[in-house]
Amino acid sequence: MTLAICFDDVTAAAARLRGHAHRTPVLRSATVDALTGAQVFFKAENFQRMGAFKFRGAFNALAQFSEAQRERGVIAFSSGNHAQAVALSARLLGMPSVIVMPQDAPALKVAATRGYQAGDARSEVILYDRYTQDREAIGRELAQSRGMTLIPPFDHPHVMAGQGTAALELFEQVAEQGADGADGHAVPPLDALLVCVGGGGLISGCATVAKHLNPAMQVYGVEPEAGNDTQQSLARGEIVRIATPRTIADGAQTEASGQLTFPVIQALVDGIVTVSDAELAKTMHLLAERMKIVVEPTGALAAAALLQAAPGLPDLRDQRVGVIISGGNVDLQRFAQLVSSVA
Amino acid sequence: MTLAICFDDVTAAAARLRGHAHRTPVLRSATVDALTGAQVFFKAENFQRMGAFKFRGAFNALAQFSEAQRERGVIAFSSGNHAQAVALSARLLGMPSVIVMPQDAPALKVAATRGYQAGDARSEVILYDRYTQDREAIGRELAQSRGMTLIPPFDHPHVMAGQGTAALELFEQVAEQGADGADGHAVPPLDALLVCVGGGGLISGCATVAKHLNPAMQVYGVEPEAGNDTQQSLARGEIVRIATPRTIADGAQTEASGQLTFPVIQALVDGIVTVSDAELAKTMHLLAERMKIVVEPTGALAAAALLQAAPGLPDLRDQRVGVIISGGNVDLQRFAQLVSSVA
Repeated sequence: MTLAICFDDVTAAAARLRGHAHRTPVLRSATVDALTGAQVFFKAENFQRMGAFKFRGAFNALAQFSEAQRERGVIAFSSGNHAQAVALSARLLGMPSVIVMPQDAPALKVAATRGYQAGDARSEVILYDRYTQDREAIGRELAQSRGMTLIPPFDHPHVMAGQGTAALELFEQVAEQGADGADGHAVPPLDALLVCVGGGGLISGCATVAKHLNPAMQVYGVEPEAGNDTQQSLARGEIVRIATPRTIADGAQTEASGQLTFPVIQALVDGIVTVSDAELAKTMHLLAERMKIVVEPTGALAAAALLQAAPGLPDLRDQRVGVIISGGNVDLQRFAQLVSSVA
Repeated sequence: MTLAICFDDVTAAAARLRGHAHRTPVLRSATVDALTGAQVFFKAENFQRMGAFKFRGAFNALAQFSEAQRERGVIAFSSGNHAQAVALSARLLGMPSVIVMPQDAPALKVAATRGYQAGDARSEVILYDRYTQDREAIGRELAQSRGMTLIPPFDHPHVMAGQGTAALELFEQVAEQGADGADGHAVPPLDALLVCVGGGGLISGCATVAKHLNPAMQVYGVEPEAGNDTQQSLARGEIVRIATPRTIADGAQTEASGQLTFPVIQALVDGIVTVSDAELAKTMHLLAERMKIVVEPTGALAAAALLQAAPGLPDLRDQRVGVIISGGNVDLQRFAQLVSSVA
């Protein structure tokens, strides 16, 4: 079976993103190295435009619209980072966007999305009642009546390829840091890569890059304990659908992997491990206290798995480990509560 | 009058720090650019080793100890970032350190300093009672009896030169980002640089670099409103000493500039402006919410001045402005309180 994306799709995405996406920094922490016994390289996508890696996939998808598609614009359903990613990408590319969000979405997120649409009268946020209305039907109706193109949050080859550029950059930056190091020698590539998993867009892109550049690199996904649908799916050998999980990791509250992402995960990912919400809060505290970064709960999944040595992970001591920090969009009051709950 | 340091001292410091200090990232924010009308480049020294720029000056000073000095070790008075900077630098250079701290210093800071000394039985934290004991006398006695070298927190040419490497790196990185930009053209240098001021170590080093590379660059210092001793000193033309100021910017609670730092400030700094504690808290909130970084109150001084257009600053709209974020060492409970107080 042919997978939805290959390495060249990711390098092409990187070329499209050049000058538009931030080349986010790779951070090190002596504390984390000491705690884990590994050499850890954090790819800080919380510093990406609109605060999360999602910008990469959305921009890569919208940048490939035909002239006719651009004129009609893009539609997306999301109350999370994908909404802001699509709204911002559309503005940068000069096309209208319609974002369909539940009526009870946080006011802050609605405002942020509208902020990215500001100045384009053709763009709007459409709110729906998630108890009485069917968002798929709303989307289909809008797509048809307005001729807009729907971009899903993860199950799309252009989105997957765009997300993979986070790993491509990380590997480049680790190599540069090595060449820039005290001894001036080239460094060996990473031994392992840890990536959070919601619908699988990020990990499918990242695994595609990792296994192409170094088939020996171990790639592990991390889900919240309550939302381990992908872990179950891998065990079952087919996509398992679960009820919307209750977890503070709101970016990983997906019910099932995608039709396109799951085969990539099956083919290229070495395993999926899980962490609890308490471990996420503890990790957010450590990342803020020792690394001075604000990370959203979902963004802390991969770091939490490493720091807690989540069951199922191989022994990573003395290994060179990449960890993707996926985003930093968390209400600050909520952030303050979560990190205060730990100390 | 000859100033205590020159540009070559800073480049020599940069060579000593290579492979030891982090090359901290330069961060951009579309939000901040929109709010200020400027192009703003944040030098994120909250990501420096031990969490603040102070590592640069301390390491540069200790790295120049003679063999005999190294054997006896270093002594410092500090309850803040200088303590951790000296303790860590001493460990990296294999020499003992004695840090003299007030008995009522936060337990966390004492523990962090002891953590950097761990494994060296010759190193210790000595606590004194700030109401009944004279720390200068303690220091002199220790320096004499143990033959240790005292390194002050700011008023020392090696410390000043080390701190200047933060600006040197910032200018290099801005130039690299430009060369790396969409159009591939070299970028013009910065038009202005904003730096927080406590005892003047950081700004004297940074101004030395800025005015050497671009005499037209405007360099402004930022003090807390309650602790504007340097602003007063510049107005008076001599060092003014004030009572220990009450401000949340604990890194800028100095009573007076140094004998070596003040002449550099007089010669090279275009002006000093001030911000209130409320403005600092507001800025910490914005830096966390929009830029996803944890910044200590003192670390937010320069950003606050820009964002609030502090009286005395020139019009910086349409200018390219460098802002030094000096550190991120703030107790997380305190941080949570401060940012929650704003929203």
